[in-house]
Amino acid sequence: TTILQQVIKSLSMQVFFDPDLSGQTARMNREASHHAVRVLRLREGQHVRITNGRGTMAESVVLDPDPEGCTIQIRTLHQNYQKRPYHLHMAMAPPKSQDRYEWFLEKATEIGVDEITPILCDHSERKRTRQDRSERILQAAMLQAGHAFLPVVHALQPFREFIQDRASGPLFMSHCQNGNTLPLCRSIRAGMNGIVLIGPEGDFSKDEIDFARKHGAQEVRLGNARFRTETAGLVACHTFSLVNQK
Amino acid sequence: TTILQQVIKSLSMQVFFDPDLSGQTARMNREASHHAVRVLRLREGQHVRITNGRGTMAESVVLDPDPEGCTIQIRTLHQNYQKRPYHLHMAMAPPKSQDRYEWFLEKATEIGVDEITPILCDHSERKRTRQDRSERILQAAMLQAGHAFLPVVHALQPFREFIQDRASGPLFMSHCQNGNTLPLCRSIRAGMNGIVLIGPEGDFSKDEIDFARKHGAQEVRLGNARFRTETAGLVACHTFSLVNQK
Repeated sequence: TTILQQVIKSLSMQVFFDPDLSGQTARMNREASHHAVRVLRLREGQHVRITNGRGTMAESVVLDPDPEGCTIQIRTLHQNYQKRPYHLHMAMAPPKSQDRYEWFLEKATEIGVDEITPILCDHSERKRTRQDRSERILQAAMLQAGHAFLPVVHALQPFREFIQDRASGPLFMSHCQNGNTLPLCRSIRAGMNGIVLIGPEGDFSKDEIDFARKHGAQEVRLGNARFRTETAGLVACHTFSLVNQK
Repeated sequence: TTILQQVIKSLSMQVFFDPDLSGQTARMNREASHHAVRVLRLREGQHVRITNGRGTMAESVVLDPDPEGCTIQIRTLHQNYQKRPYHLHMAMAPPKSQDRYEWFLEKATEIGVDEITPILCDHSERKRTRQDRSERILQAAMLQAGHAFLPVVHALQPFREFIQDRASGPLFMSHCQNGNTLPLCRSIRAGMNGIVLIGPEGDFSKDEIDFARKHGAQEVRLGNARFRTETAGLVACHTFSLVNQK
């Protein structure tokens, strides 16, 4: 499998995370170094990339593959690397299953999202999320996908509070109750920002739908199917991505 | 949680599966009856739907909620229920992780796919799939999403054999190797069928790419990110869905 591993490596140049790319070199912490040297077998002279998760991607070369503290020379910095032309904030009631929530976090990061707020709704069955786990998943998915922007995941927030506190911007609500709603893909255009509300398994309550309407939310549908919560979230992220694809 | 359960039920009318909808009534098998009566608490007179997975959706009413054999009266048959205006065949190297493969099966079914063929590629790490598990996942996802067409999942097939045996139709290949490729969303239009090839973690080999080219495959990209195999599969399914959305 050595040749295969080389193929995989060349196809998918390793991307590492370092919040500080201001120096000429970067030194990975012990955990990252161990993974890079022992698992990924980084060698001296190997080309890698490092991102700070705030838009900078650094073309770099391994100086010293020390498993206790791997040192990397930073050569070229790309700012605003593959910056998307829109800002997407997903506010989703986390599905009952932790796996399904984490799958959403991973896929949304791969496909493209800027902020995620788990929201607590009238029909929510899950009332807690694990912030530390969520952040680890987002970081791993960002590196895997080769992105340079780390999405922000906020703490769980009650639905009405989220609506009132949110930054301004077009607000879209996907729910299953009857109504003549436009598909999301016809409600947005390239370059447009959005905040998308996705309800829990039991959907938004009538009162929540009224509340969102009063606060200017536009009701949209995501297709003809009855999507699971995490599928609806993913489909909304990809709709924004596709409408912006050239 | 009784009110919540009622809310969930009314929002998402239960859909059941019965391959034979030719009679005036349908009788569920023991396993389905037990689930319907003991878990979902179906009551006499309750409205439900039954599909045969071949496009027929039957509006029905529970006659006898017997947990050993629940009987349902069929009232109205809808043929070609929510039939998609395109035929999509996904040929994907199953990811190393069984979970990730099964996520793909579930999400592809929710979003819309007609046939799935797991393919064995030069760089495949997974060389087997479990047909019975796959079929169960597709059926559950079809019922959950409220669809009336059950996707067909074929047995694992070697890549070159698949290319040679396939039905005619536009063939699209998504790979990570450089090349001036169009985005899939610009390569298709509403109503167009497609066969989409998605490679394994180590990508298609150069030889596989050449082989597909010689057989008329059009190379496409799915976005700027380095998607995981199962993400690429989902994104391809949703691209077809969105291009066809009115």
